[in-house]
Amino acid sequence: MIDFSRLSLNSATTKYWTLEQVIEGCVRTGIPSIGPWRDRVAEVGTERAAKLISNAGLRVSSLCRGGFLTASGPAGRGAAVRDNRAAILEAETLGAGELFLVVGGLPDGDRDIIAARRRVAERLEELVPFAADHGVRLVLEPLHPMYAADRALLSTLGQALDLAAPYPPAVVGVAVDTFHVWWDPQLREQIVRAGRENRIASYQICDFNLPIASDALLSRGIMGDGVIDFATITGWVAAAGYTGDIEVEIFNQEIWNNPGDELLETIKDRYASLVLPFS
Amino acid sequence: MIDFSRLSLNSATTKYWTLEQVIEGCVRTGIPSIGPWRDRVAEVGTERAAKLISNAGLRVSSLCRGGFLTASGPAGRGAAVRDNRAAILEAETLGAGELFLVVGGLPDGDRDIIAARRRVAERLEELVPFAADHGVRLVLEPLHPMYAADRALLSTLGQALDLAAPYPPAVVGVAVDTFHVWWDPQLREQIVRAGRENRIASYQICDFNLPIASDALLSRGIMGDGVIDFATITGWVAAAGYTGDIEVEIFNQEIWNNPGDELLETIKDRYASLVLPFS
Repeated sequence: MIDFSRLSLNSATTKYWTLEQVIEGCVRTGIPSIGPWRDRVAEVGTERAAKLISNAGLRVSSLCRGGFLTASGPAGRGAAVRDNRAAILEAETLGAGELFLVVGGLPDGDRDIIAARRRVAERLEELVPFAADHGVRLVLEPLHPMYAADRALLSTLGQALDLAAPYPPAVVGVAVDTFHVWWDPQLREQIVRAGRENRIASYQICDFNLPIASDALLSRGIMGDGVIDFATITGWVAAAGYTGDIEVEIFNQEIWNNPGDELLETIKDRYASLVLPFS
Repeated sequence: MIDFSRLSLNSATTKYWTLEQVIEGCVRTGIPSIGPWRDRVAEVGTERAAKLISNAGLRVSSLCRGGFLTASGPAGRGAAVRDNRAAILEAETLGAGELFLVVGGLPDGDRDIIAARRRVAERLEELVPFAADHGVRLVLEPLHPMYAADRALLSTLGQALDLAAPYPPAVVGVAVDTFHVWWDPQLREQIVRAGRENRIASYQICDFNLPIASDALLSRGIMGDGVIDFATITGWVAAAGYTGDIEVEIFNQEIWNNPGDELLETIKDRYASLVLPFS
Protein backbone atom coordinates (compact mmCIF):
# COMPACT_ATOMS: atom_id res chain seq x y z
CA MET A 1 0.00 0.00 0.00
CA ILE A 2 1.64 3.21 -1.18
CA ASP A 3 1.31 6.18 1.16
CA PHE A 4 -0.07 9.13 -0.77
CA SER A 5 -1.04 11.02 2.38
CA ARG A 6 1.36 13.90 1.72
CA LEU A 7 0.67 14.26 -2.01
CA SER A 8 -1.04 17.45 -3.09
CA LEU A 9 -2.24 18.59 -6.51
CA ASN A 10 -1.73 22.20 -7.44
CA SER A 11 -4.70 23.25 -9.54
CA ALA A 12 -2.49 24.74 -12.27
CA THR A 13 -1.34 21.21 -13.08
CA THR A 14 -4.81 20.48 -14.46
CA LYS A 15 -5.18 23.92 -15.93
CA TYR A 16 -8.48 23.38 -17.75
CA TRP A 17 -10.27 21.84 -14.79
CA THR A 18 -12.62 23.94 -12.68
CA LEU A 19 -12.17 23.75 -8.92
CA GLU A 20 -14.97 21.18 -8.74
CA GLN A 21 -13.22 19.05 -11.35
CA VAL A 22 -9.94 19.29 -9.44
CA ILE A 23 -11.72 18.19 -6.27
CA GLU A 24 -13.45 15.32 -8.05
CA GLY A 25 -10.22 14.26 -9.72
CA CYS A 26 -8.37 14.18 -6.41
CA VAL A 27 -11.16 12.20 -4.74
CA ARG A 28 -11.29 9.74 -7.66
CA THR A 29 -7.56 9.13 -7.64
CA GLY A 30 -6.96 9.28 -3.90
CA ILE A 31 -4.93 12.49 -3.74
CA PRO A 32 -5.77 13.96 -0.33
CA SER A 33 -4.72 17.58 -0.69
CA ILE A 34 -5.01 20.39 -3.20
CA GLY A 35 -3.28 23.71 -3.77
CA PRO A 36 -5.79 25.90 -5.60
CA TRP A 37 -5.05 29.05 -7.57
CA ARG A 38 -7.06 32.12 -6.72
CA ASP A 39 -8.77 32.35 -10.13
CA ARG A 40 -10.28 28.87 -9.68
CA VAL A 41 -11.38 29.78 -6.17
CA ALA A 42 -12.89 33.06 -7.36
CA GLU A 43 -15.05 31.24 -9.91
CA VAL A 44 -17.06 29.59 -7.18
CA GLY A 45 -16.47 32.08 -4.37
CA THR A 46 -14.11 31.58 -1.47
CA GLU A 47 -16.60 30.33 1.12
CA ARG A 48 -18.17 27.86 -1.26
CA ALA A 49 -14.71 26.71 -2.36
CA ALA A 50 -13.78 26.08 1.25
CA LYS A 51 -16.96 24.02 1.76
CA LEU A 52 -16.50 22.02 -1.45
CA ILE A 53 -12.96 21.11 -0.50
CA SER A 54 -13.69 20.19 3.09
CA ASN A 55 -16.91 18.34 2.22
CA ALA A 56 -14.85 16.23 -0.15
CA GLY A 57 -12.52 15.36 2.73
CA LEU A 58 -9.55 17.14 1.15
CA ARG A 59 -6.96 19.45 2.67
CA VAL A 60 -5.73 22.72 1.23
CA SER A 61 -1.93 22.71 1.06
CA SER A 62 -1.55 26.33 0.01
CA LEU A 63 -3.16 29.13 -1.94
CA CYS A 64 -1.50 30.42 -5.13
CA ARG A 65 -0.81 33.30 -5.14
CA GLY A 66 -0.20 36.79 -3.93
CA GLY A 67 2.82 38.95 -4.49
CA PHE A 68 3.77 41.30 -7.34
CA LEU A 69 5.10 43.81 -4.88
CA THR A 70 7.56 45.79 -7.02
CA ALA A 71 5.46 48.72 -8.24
CA SER A 72 7.16 52.04 -7.53
CA GLY A 73 4.31 54.57 -7.65
CA PRO A 74 1.85 55.05 -4.78
CA ALA A 75 -1.09 53.74 -6.82
CA GLY A 76 0.73 50.52 -7.72
CA ARG A 77 1.99 50.07 -4.18
CA GLY A 78 -1.48 50.56 -2.74
CA ALA A 79 -3.05 48.17 -5.24
CA ALA A 80 -0.46 45.52 -4.38
CA VAL A 81 -1.13 45.79 -0.67
CA ARG A 82 -4.90 45.67 -1.18
CA ASP A 83 -4.69 42.63 -3.46
CA ASN A 84 -2.43 40.79 -1.05
CA ARG A 85 -4.69 41.56 1.90
CA ALA A 86 -7.57 40.11 -0.11
CA ALA A 87 -5.48 37.03 -0.82
CA ILE A 88 -4.66 36.65 2.88
CA LEU A 89 -8.38 36.74 3.69
CA GLU A 90 -9.08 34.16 1.00
CA ALA A 91 -6.37 31.89 2.41
CA GLU A 92 -7.85 32.27 5.88
CA THR A 93 -11.35 31.40 4.64
CA LEU A 94 -10.01 28.40 2.75
CA GLY A 95 -8.05 27.22 5.76
CA ALA A 96 -5.01 27.28 3.51
CA GLY A 97 -2.62 28.32 6.23
CA GLU A 98 -0.10 29.31 3.59
CA LEU A 99 -0.21 31.92 0.86
CA PHE A 100 2.41 31.82 -1.86
CA LEU A 101 3.99 35.11 -2.85
CA VAL A 102 5.57 35.53 -6.26
CA VAL A 103 7.23 38.82 -5.57
CA GLY A 104 7.20 40.35 -9.06
CA GLY A 105 9.81 41.45 -11.55
CA LEU A 106 11.03 44.79 -12.80
CA PRO A 107 8.31 47.31 -13.62
CA ASP A 108 8.19 48.12 -17.35
CA GLY A 109 11.23 50.11 -18.41
CA ASP A 110 12.76 49.97 -14.92
CA ARG A 111 16.23 48.41 -14.67
CA ASP A 112 16.99 49.09 -11.03
CA ILE A 113 16.72 45.61 -9.57
CA ILE A 114 18.21 46.69 -6.25
CA ALA A 115 15.55 49.32 -5.66
CA ALA A 116 12.83 46.91 -6.81
CA ARG A 117 14.04 44.32 -4.31
CA ARG A 118 13.96 46.97 -1.59
CA ARG A 119 10.32 47.70 -2.44
CA VAL A 120 9.53 43.99 -2.05
CA ALA A 121 10.98 44.11 1.45
CA GLU A 122 8.95 47.23 2.25
CA ARG A 123 5.65 45.75 1.03
CA LEU A 124 6.36 42.55 2.92
CA GLU A 125 6.84 44.58 6.09
CA GLU A 126 3.40 46.14 5.51
CA LEU A 127 1.73 42.78 4.95
CA VAL A 128 3.23 40.77 7.79
CA PRO A 129 1.07 42.14 10.65
CA PHE A 130 -2.10 41.60 8.62
CA ALA A 131 -1.08 38.04 7.77
CA ALA A 132 -0.23 37.34 11.40
CA ASP A 133 -3.60 38.69 12.54
CA HIS A 134 -5.34 36.28 10.18
CA GLY A 135 -3.22 33.25 10.92
CA VAL A 136 -1.84 33.02 7.38
CA ARG A 137 1.80 32.30 6.67
CA LEU A 138 3.30 34.22 3.77
CA VAL A 139 5.44 31.93 1.64
CA LEU A 140 8.27 33.58 -0.25
CA GLU A 141 8.91 31.61 -3.40
CA PRO A 142 12.26 32.00 -5.11
CA LEU A 143 11.73 31.60 -8.83
CA HIS A 144 14.24 30.42 -11.41
CA PRO A 145 16.53 33.29 -12.43
CA MET A 146 15.17 33.14 -15.98
CA TYR A 147 12.04 34.80 -14.56
CA ALA A 148 13.91 37.46 -12.58
CA ALA A 149 12.99 40.32 -14.89
CA ASP A 150 9.33 39.65 -15.51
CA ARG A 151 8.03 37.56 -12.63
CA ALA A 152 10.14 37.39 -9.49
CA LEU A 153 13.42 39.07 -8.68
CA LEU A 154 13.63 36.70 -5.76
CA SER A 155 15.87 34.07 -7.32
CA THR A 156 17.48 31.90 -4.66
CA LEU A 157 16.51 30.18 -1.46
CA GLY A 158 19.24 32.06 0.40
CA GLN A 159 17.83 35.37 -0.78
CA ALA A 160 14.32 34.32 0.31
CA LEU A 161 15.63 33.39 3.77
CA ASP A 162 17.38 36.74 4.06
CA LEU A 163 14.13 38.48 3.15
CA ALA A 164 12.20 36.40 5.68
CA ALA A 165 14.75 36.85 8.46
CA PRO A 166 13.18 39.83 10.29
CA TYR A 167 9.87 38.00 10.85
CA PRO A 168 8.71 35.03 12.91
CA PRO A 169 8.91 31.77 10.94
CA ALA A 170 5.24 31.10 11.65
CA VAL A 171 4.35 34.22 9.64
CA VAL A 172 6.93 34.21 6.85
CA GLY A 173 8.19 30.98 5.34
CA VAL A 174 9.86 29.95 2.11
CA ALA A 175 9.00 27.48 -0.62
CA VAL A 176 11.34 24.94 -2.09
CA ASP A 177 10.20 24.32 -5.66
CA THR A 178 12.51 21.88 -7.40
CA PHE A 179 12.08 23.51 -10.81
CA HIS A 180 13.24 26.86 -9.53
CA VAL A 181 16.15 25.86 -7.30
CA TRP A 182 17.63 22.58 -8.54
CA TRP A 183 20.60 24.31 -10.23
CA ASP A 184 21.66 26.35 -7.17
CA PRO A 185 25.18 25.48 -6.00
CA GLN A 186 24.15 26.61 -2.48
CA LEU A 187 20.97 24.53 -2.46
CA ARG A 188 21.98 21.99 0.14
CA GLU A 189 23.30 24.53 2.65
CA GLN A 190 20.28 26.79 2.17
CA ILE A 191 17.83 23.91 2.67
CA VAL A 192 19.69 23.03 5.86
CA ARG A 193 19.46 26.66 6.91
CA ALA A 194 15.76 26.84 6.02
CA GLY A 195 15.12 23.83 8.21
CA ARG A 196 17.16 25.22 11.08
CA GLU A 197 15.24 28.50 10.85
CA ASN A 198 11.86 26.68 10.63
CA ARG A 199 11.06 28.37 7.35
CA ILE A 200 10.20 25.53 4.99
CA ALA A 201 6.53 26.14 4.30
CA SER A 202 6.13 24.13 1.13
CA TYR A 203 7.90 21.57 -0.99
CA GLN A 204 6.73 21.76 -4.60
CA ILE A 205 7.85 19.27 -7.17
CA CYS A 206 8.06 19.16 -10.92
CA ASP A 207 10.88 18.54 -13.34
CA PHE A 208 12.97 20.93 -15.43
CA ASN A 209 12.44 19.86 -19.02
CA LEU A 210 14.78 20.45 -21.91
CA PRO A 211 14.76 22.10 -24.30
CA ILE A 212 13.26 25.11 -22.54
CA ALA A 213 9.75 25.61 -23.96
CA SER A 214 9.27 28.46 -26.42
CA ASP A 215 7.10 29.99 -23.71
CA ALA A 216 9.68 29.65 -20.95
CA LEU A 217 6.97 29.48 -18.28
CA LEU A 218 5.80 26.14 -19.63
CA SER A 219 8.99 24.11 -19.25
CA ARG A 220 7.81 22.40 -16.10
CA GLY A 221 7.61 18.65 -16.52
CA ILE A 222 6.40 15.56 -14.72
CA MET A 223 8.94 14.21 -12.27
CA GLY A 224 11.30 11.93 -14.18
CA ASP A 225 10.91 13.64 -17.55
CA GLY A 226 13.65 16.21 -17.02
CA VAL A 227 17.02 16.73 -15.39
CA ILE A 228 16.24 17.00 -11.68
CA ASP A 229 17.61 14.57 -9.09
CA PHE A 230 14.50 14.19 -6.91
CA ALA A 231 16.07 11.63 -4.60
CA THR A 232 18.79 14.02 -3.51
CA ILE A 233 16.71 17.18 -3.14
CA THR A 234 13.83 15.35 -1.46
CA GLY A 235 16.29 13.79 0.96
CA TRP A 236 17.70 17.21 1.85
CA VAL A 237 14.21 18.60 2.44
CA ALA A 238 13.32 15.61 4.61
CA ALA A 239 16.56 15.88 6.58
CA ALA A 240 15.73 19.54 7.18
CA GLY A 241 12.63 18.36 9.03
CA TYR A 242 9.89 19.11 6.52
CA THR A 243 6.89 16.84 7.00
CA GLY A 244 4.16 18.80 5.20
CA ASP A 245 2.43 18.32 1.90
CA ILE A 246 4.38 17.73 -1.28
CA GLU A 247 2.63 19.65 -4.00
CA VAL A 248 2.84 18.90 -7.69
CA GLU A 249 2.71 22.03 -9.82
CA ILE A 250 3.28 21.62 -13.54
CA PHE A 251 2.84 24.17 -16.31
CA ASN A 252 3.20 22.43 -19.63
CA GLN A 253 0.99 22.82 -22.68
CA GLU A 254 1.46 19.25 -23.85
CA ILE A 255 0.46 17.92 -20.44
CA TRP A 256 -2.51 20.27 -20.23
CA ASN A 257 -3.74 18.93 -23.57
CA ASN A 258 -4.01 15.38 -22.19
CA PRO A 259 -6.81 13.87 -20.09
CA GLY A 260 -6.51 14.90 -16.44
CA ASP A 261 -7.13 11.50 -14.86
CA GLU A 262 -4.29 9.90 -16.80
CA LEU A 263 -2.04 12.72 -15.67
CA LEU A 264 -2.98 12.20 -12.03
CA GLU A 265 -2.17 8.49 -12.28
CA THR A 266 1.19 9.29 -13.86
CA ILE A 267 1.90 11.82 -11.13
CA LYS A 268 1.11 9.23 -8.47
CA ASP A 269 3.41 6.69 -10.13
CA ARG A 270 6.29 9.11 -10.41
CA TYR A 271 5.75 10.40 -6.89
CA ALA A 272 5.75 6.83 -5.57
CA SER A 273 9.00 5.91 -7.31
CA LEU A 274 11.01 9.13 -7.40
CA VAL A 275 9.95 11.18 -4.38
CA LEU A 276 8.14 9.20 -1.68
CA PRO A 277 11.04 6.82 -0.84
CA PHE A 278 13.27 9.80 -0.02
CA SER A 279 10.75 11.91 1.85
CA MET B 1 36.51 62.10 -29.04
CA ILE B 2 35.03 58.92 -27.58
CA ASP B 3 37.52 56.44 -26.19
CA PHE B 4 36.89 53.03 -27.72
CA SER B 5 40.29 51.68 -26.68
CA ARG B 6 38.81 49.01 -24.41
CA LEU B 7 36.01 47.88 -26.73
CA SER B 8 36.29 44.37 -28.12
CA LEU B 9 34.09 42.49 -30.58
CA ASN B 10 33.43 38.83 -29.91
CA SER B 11 33.24 37.08 -33.26
CA ALA B 12 29.95 35.36 -32.39
CA THR B 13 28.29 38.78 -32.47
CA THR B 14 28.79 38.85 -36.24
CA LYS B 15 28.08 35.18 -36.62
CA TYR B 16 28.15 35.00 -40.40
CA TRP B 17 31.43 36.88 -40.83
CA THR B 18 34.64 34.97 -41.41
CA LEU B 19 37.60 35.91 -39.25
CA GLU B 20 38.89 38.15 -42.05
CA GLN B 21 35.54 39.93 -42.21
CA VAL B 22 35.55 40.41 -38.43
CA ILE B 23 39.04 41.88 -38.64
CA GLU B 24 38.09 44.15 -41.53
CA GLY B 25 34.90 45.24 -39.76
CA CYS B 26 36.80 46.14 -36.61
CA VAL B 27 39.42 48.08 -38.55
CA ARG B 28 36.71 49.93 -40.54
CA THR B 29 34.78 50.92 -37.43
CA GLY B 30 37.69 51.55 -35.11
CA ILE B 31 37.15 48.67 -32.69
CA PRO B 32 40.66 47.80 -31.50
CA SER B 33 40.22 44.30 -30.08
CA ILE B 34 38.52 41.04 -31.01
CA GLY B 35 37.51 37.89 -29.18
CA PRO B 36 37.47 35.12 -31.79
CA TRP B 37 35.75 31.77 -31.51
CA ARG B 38 37.81 28.71 -32.25
CA ASP B 39 35.79 27.67 -35.29
CA ARG B 40 36.55 30.97 -37.03
CA VAL B 41 40.22 30.62 -36.11
CA ALA B 42 40.31 27.03 -37.37
CA GLU B 43 39.02 28.09 -40.78
CA VAL B 44 42.21 30.00 -41.51
CA GLY B 45 44.58 28.16 -39.18
CA THR B 46 45.82 29.45 -35.85
CA GLU B 47 49.15 30.90 -36.97
CA ARG B 48 47.64 32.69 -39.93
CA ALA B 49 44.81 33.97 -37.71
CA ALA B 50 47.39 35.38 -35.30
CA LYS B 51 49.18 37.14 -38.17
CA LEU B 52 45.98 38.52 -39.70
CA ILE B 53 44.92 39.99 -36.38
CA SER B 54 48.27 41.48 -35.45
CA ASN B 55 48.94 42.77 -38.99
CA ALA B 56 45.65 44.62 -38.76
CA GLY B 57 46.84 46.25 -35.54
CA LEU B 58 44.19 44.56 -33.41
CA ARG B 59 44.44 42.87 -30.03
CA VAL B 60 42.93 39.52 -29.05
CA SER B 61 40.87 39.92 -25.90
CA SER B 62 40.17 36.23 -25.40
CA LEU B 63 39.61 32.95 -27.17
CA CYS B 64 36.19 31.27 -27.04
CA ARG B 65 36.14 28.53 -25.91
CA GLY B 66 37.26 25.41 -24.14
CA GLY B 67 35.49 23.54 -21.40
CA PHE B 68 32.82 20.80 -21.53
CA LEU B 69 34.52 18.95 -18.74
CA THR B 70 31.66 16.92 -17.28
CA ALA B 71 32.00 13.58 -19.10
CA SER B 72 32.11 10.68 -16.69
CA GLY B 73 33.72 7.87 -18.71
CA PRO B 74 37.47 7.67 -19.34
CA ALA B 75 37.06 8.26 -23.09
CA GLY B 76 35.03 11.42 -22.58
CA ARG B 77 37.37 12.66 -19.88
CA GLY B 78 40.41 12.07 -22.07
CA ALA B 79 38.81 13.76 -25.05
CA ALA B 80 37.94 16.79 -22.94
CA VAL B 81 41.49 17.16 -21.66
CA ARG B 82 42.94 16.77 -25.17
CA ASP B 83 40.56 19.32 -26.65
CA ASN B 84 41.27 21.83 -23.91
CA ARG B 85 45.02 21.38 -24.28
CA ALA B 86 44.60 22.09 -27.99
CA ALA B 87 42.59 25.21 -27.12
CA ILE B 88 45.32 26.35 -24.71
CA LEU B 89 47.91 26.02 -27.48
CA GLU B 90 45.67 27.95 -29.87
CA ALA B 91 45.27 30.71 -27.30
CA GLU B 92 49.02 30.85 -26.83
CA THR B 93 49.63 31.09 -30.58
CA LEU B 94 47.00 33.80 -30.92
CA GLY B 95 48.47 35.74 -28.02
CA ALA B 96 45.02 35.57 -26.49
CA GLY B 97 46.24 35.35 -22.93
CA GLU B 98 42.83 34.15 -21.85
CA LEU B 99 40.83 31.07 -22.77
CA PHE B 100 37.16 30.94 -21.85
CA LEU B 101 35.88 27.72 -20.36
CA VAL B 102 32.20 26.85 -20.56
CA VAL B 103 32.31 23.93 -18.19
CA GLY B 104 29.52 21.79 -19.61
CA GLY B 105 26.18 20.51 -18.36
CA LEU B 106 24.85 17.15 -17.28
CA PRO B 107 25.80 14.25 -19.52
CA ASP B 108 22.75 12.75 -21.27
CA GLY B 109 20.52 10.93 -18.80
CA ASP B 110 22.73 11.89 -15.84
CA ARG B 111 21.04 13.85 -13.05
CA ASP B 112 23.84 13.95 -10.50
CA ILE B 113 24.85 17.60 -10.70
CA ILE B 114 27.04 17.33 -7.62
CA ALA B 115 29.19 14.60 -9.12
CA ALA B 116 29.31 16.43 -12.45
CA ARG B 117 30.57 19.56 -10.71
CA ARG B 118 33.21 17.47 -8.97
CA ARG B 119 34.40 16.21 -12.35
CA VAL B 120 34.73 19.81 -13.56
CA ALA B 121 37.01 20.53 -10.60
CA GLU B 122 39.06 17.40 -11.36
CA ARG B 123 39.52 18.25 -15.05
CA LEU B 124 40.44 21.81 -14.14
CA GLU B 125 43.12 20.47 -11.82
CA GLU B 126 44.52 18.47 -14.74
CA LEU B 127 44.53 21.47 -17.08
CA VAL B 128 45.99 24.13 -14.82
CA PRO B 129 49.67 23.09 -15.03
CA PHE B 130 49.48 22.88 -18.83
CA ALA B 131 47.85 26.32 -19.03
CA ALA B 132 50.46 27.78 -16.69
CA ASP B 133 53.28 26.32 -18.78
CA HIS B 134 51.87 28.03 -21.84
CA GLY B 135 51.08 31.37 -20.25
CA VAL B 136 47.34 31.06 -20.82
CA ARG B 137 44.83 32.02 -18.18
CA LEU B 138 41.79 29.76 -17.93
CA VAL B 139 38.65 31.83 -17.55
CA LEU B 140 35.77 30.17 -15.73
CA GLU B 141 32.54 31.57 -17.06
CA PRO B 142 29.42 31.24 -14.95
CA LEU B 143 26.45 30.85 -17.27
CA HIS B 144 22.86 31.80 -16.57
CA PRO B 145 21.14 29.05 -14.56
CA MET B 146 18.77 28.38 -17.46
CA TYR B 147 21.75 26.69 -19.15
CA ALA B 148 22.80 24.67 -16.09
CA ALA B 149 21.59 21.34 -17.44
CA ASP B 150 22.83 21.48 -21.02
CA ARG B 151 25.73 23.92 -21.14
CA ALA B 152 27.34 24.91 -17.85
CA LEU B 153 26.55 23.78 -14.35
CA LEU B 154 28.69 26.67 -13.20
CA SER B 155 25.93 29.19 -12.52
CA THR B 156 27.17 31.99 -10.27
CA LEU B 157 30.21 34.16 -9.90
CA GLY B 158 30.62 32.98 -6.30
CA GLN B 159 30.69 29.37 -7.45
CA ALA B 160 33.28 30.22 -10.12
CA LEU B 161 35.47 31.93 -7.54
CA ASP B 162 35.21 28.90 -5.25
CA LEU B 163 36.27 26.68 -8.14
CA ALA B 164 39.19 28.98 -8.97
CA ALA B 165 40.33 29.34 -5.37
CA PRO B 166 43.00 26.60 -5.28
CA TYR B 167 44.95 28.14 -8.17
CA PRO B 168 46.96 31.30 -8.75
CA PRO B 169 44.83 34.12 -10.13
CA ALA B 170 47.22 34.50 -13.07
CA VAL B 171 46.30 30.99 -14.20
CA VAL B 172 42.59 30.75 -13.34
CA GLY B 173 40.32 33.76 -13.60
CA VAL B 174 36.60 34.33 -13.92
CA ALA B 175 34.42 36.13 -16.44
CA VAL B 176 31.71 38.60 -15.62
CA ASP B 177 29.16 38.40 -18.43
CA THR B 178 26.24 40.71 -17.74
CA PHE B 179 23.70 38.42 -19.43
CA HIS B 180 24.59 35.52 -17.19
CA VAL B 181 24.93 37.24 -13.83
CA TRP B 182 22.75 40.37 -13.78
CA TRP B 183 20.00 38.69 -11.72
CA ASP B 184 22.30 37.38 -8.95
CA PRO B 185 21.44 38.84 -5.53
CA GLN B 186 25.09 38.29 -4.52
CA LEU B 187 26.48 39.98 -7.62
CA ARG B 188 27.93 43.05 -5.98
CA GLU B 189 29.68 41.20 -3.18
CA GLN B 190 31.05 38.57 -5.56
CA ILE B 191 32.41 41.22 -7.97
CA VAL B 192 34.09 42.88 -5.00
CA ARG B 193 35.51 39.51 -4.00
CA ALA B 194 36.63 38.75 -7.57
CA GLY B 195 38.50 42.03 -7.64
CA ARG B 196 40.09 41.45 -4.25
CA GLU B 197 41.21 38.00 -5.39
CA ASN B 198 42.53 39.36 -8.73
CA ARG B 199 40.30 37.00 -10.66
CA ILE B 200 38.40 39.24 -13.08
CA ALA B 201 39.75 38.11 -16.43
CA SER B 202 37.02 39.42 -18.68
CA TYR B 203 34.03 41.71 -18.67
CA GLN B 204 31.55 40.72 -21.36
CA ILE B 205 28.51 42.78 -22.13
CA CYS B 206 25.18 42.20 -23.77
CA ASP B 207 21.62 42.67 -22.62
CA PHE B 208 19.02 40.17 -21.40
CA ASN B 209 16.10 40.48 -23.78
CA LEU B 210 12.51 39.62 -23.05
CA PRO B 211 10.66 37.55 -23.90
CA ILE B 212 13.25 34.79 -23.78
CA ALA B 213 13.86 33.66 -27.37
CA SER B 214 12.31 30.36 -28.42
CA ASP B 215 15.89 29.13 -28.70
CA ALA B 216 16.92 30.27 -25.22
CA LEU B 217 20.55 30.64 -26.27
CA LEU B 218 19.62 33.51 -28.57
CA SER B 219 18.11 35.91 -26.03
CA ARG B 220 21.24 38.05 -25.84
CA GLY B 221 20.55 41.62 -26.95
CA ILE B 222 22.38 44.84 -27.70
CA MET B 223 23.02 46.90 -24.59
CA GLY B 224 19.97 49.00 -23.90
CA ASP B 225 17.46 46.65 -25.55
CA GLY B 226 16.81 44.55 -22.46
CA VAL B 227 16.55 44.72 -18.69
CA ILE B 228 20.16 45.06 -17.53
CA ASP B 229 21.43 48.07 -15.58
CA PHE B 230 24.82 48.52 -17.26
CA ALA B 231 25.72 51.63 -15.29
CA THR B 232 25.55 49.79 -11.98
CA ILE B 233 27.26 46.56 -12.98
CA THR B 234 29.96 48.34 -15.00
CA GLY B 235 30.60 50.59 -12.01
CA TRP B 236 31.04 47.58 -9.75
CA VAL B 237 33.45 45.94 -12.18
CA ALA B 238 35.44 49.18 -12.47
CA ALA B 239 35.52 49.65 -8.70
CA ALA B 240 36.85 46.09 -8.43
CA GLY B 241 39.87 47.24 -10.40
CA TYR B 242 39.17 45.74 -13.81
CA THR B 243 40.86 47.73 -16.59
CA GLY B 244 40.92 45.17 -19.42
CA ASP B 245 38.91 44.83 -22.59
CA ILE B 246 35.14 45.03 -22.56
CA GLU B 247 33.90 42.46 -24.99
CA VAL B 248 30.54 42.51 -26.73
CA GLU B 249 29.14 39.04 -27.28
CA ILE B 250 25.62 38.80 -28.65
CA PHE B 251 23.75 35.73 -29.88
CA ASN B 252 20.53 36.85 -31.50
CA GLN B 253 19.08 35.68 -34.78
CA GLU B 254 17.45 38.99 -35.62
CA ILE B 255 20.74 40.81 -35.08
CA TRP B 256 22.68 38.24 -37.08
CA ASN B 257 20.28 38.78 -39.98
CA ASN B 258 21.22 42.48 -40.22
CA PRO B 259 24.27 44.04 -41.91
CA GLY B 260 27.35 43.75 -39.70
CA ASP B 261 28.65 47.30 -40.11
CA GLU B 262 25.36 48.81 -38.91
CA LEU B 263 25.51 46.51 -35.92
CA LEU B 264 29.04 47.60 -35.05
CA GLU B 265 28.02 51.26 -35.18
CA THR B 266 25.05 50.55 -32.92
CA ILE B 267 27.30 48.67 -30.52
CA LYS B 268 29.70 51.61 -30.42
CA ASP B 269 26.84 54.04 -29.71
CA ARG B 270 25.42 51.92 -26.92
CA TYR B 271 28.85 51.27 -25.45
CA ALA B 272 29.58 55.00 -25.48
CA SER B 273 26.35 55.94 -23.72
CA LEU B 274 25.61 52.99 -21.43
CA VAL B 275 28.96 51.44 -20.51
CA LEU B 276 31.97 53.69 -21.12
CA PRO B 277 30.97 56.47 -18.70
CA PHE B 278 30.85 53.97 -15.84
CA SER B 279 33.97 51.98 -16.69
